[in-house]
Amino acid sequence: MRHDELDEVFCSVAQTWAVIGERWTMLLIRDAFLGVRRYEEFRKRLGVSRNLLSDRLVLLVEEGVLTRRAYSERPKRYEYRLTEKGMALYPILVALGGWGDAYKVLEPPVTYTHRSCGEQCHPKLTCDRCGEPIQARDVVASLAARAFERVPEKVY
Amino acid sequence: MRHDELDEVFCSVAQTWAVIGERWTMLLIRDAFLGVRRYEEFRKRLGVSRNLLSDRLVLLVEEGVLTRRAYSERPKRYEYRLTEKGMALYPILVALGGWGDAYKVLEPPVTYTHRSCGEQCHPKLTCDRCGEPIQARDVVASLAARAFERVPEKVY
Repeated sequence: MRHDELDEVFCSVAQTWAVIGERWTMLLIRDAFLGVRRYEEFRKRLGVSRNLLSDRLVLLVEEGVLTRRAYSERPKRYEYRLTEKGMALYPILVALGGWGDAYKVLEPPVTYTHRSCGEQCHPKLTCDRCGEPIQARDVVASLAARAFERVPEKVY
Repeated sequence: MRHDELDEVFCSVAQTWAVIGERWTMLLIRDAFLGVRRYEEFRKRLGVSRNLLSDRLVLLVEEGVLTRRAYSERPKRYEYRLTEKGMALYPILVALGGWGDAYKVLEPPVTYTHRSCGEQCHPKLTCDRCGEPIQARDVVASLAARAFERVPEKVY
């Protein structure tokens, strides 16, 4: 199976990976969450080639993760913003950062303050039914019969 | 900046991405969480080449995400298991699956039952201080001064 066939697998992880799992894509999304909108700023921060950046932006706009809007007509310039679907990638970003904080850096480069309670917080996974924290050993995963087979047709 | 320089960036997302952001790696980790341990089983499920699978397994063992243990001497065969550091990738997997469930598939391929409360649950992000759900707009991210610069030396 090739990487570009990931979106034909009936698995939500693989389908998500088909959108964000290319090199650099998640760092581009990280920067979008930090307020970066313009092509040149993405390019400067990521240090990637124009071709690669353009490819990623096109994919994310096609996927509905970013919207593209012209902010200048002459010269034609675009800015990119997260859609609701893009904002919904936030738990992935937080989870990636949390693991890096725990295992890869000496001090967390980013700290989070929760607006409503005003406290510095570490977002964590909890059960939406009982509210208790969840780790891998706390849940039983049940696979649907079709799980991990190819999807018979595009389902999105 | 090249992809293999990601681990020199002082950013927890980039550092995590340097470990799991290669093609296929996250699906290999998904399968490890589902109980897959043996090389041939990984290969059959992922449909990737032996070279690619071996490269990924070596990286994950070097990173301390998987341990390798011989389960047969003749022929020499190894099994791979998640370490505690590997188990700590679980929130990333859940977040990837949650987004795919919401935006990429018609029905979730995997459902989760929380052992302690017995309910079918959707793990969600909450604030560890007040317990309320967290989305991107609910928090203010503060960057450390050095964030997103190269780290002066390896910090792990």
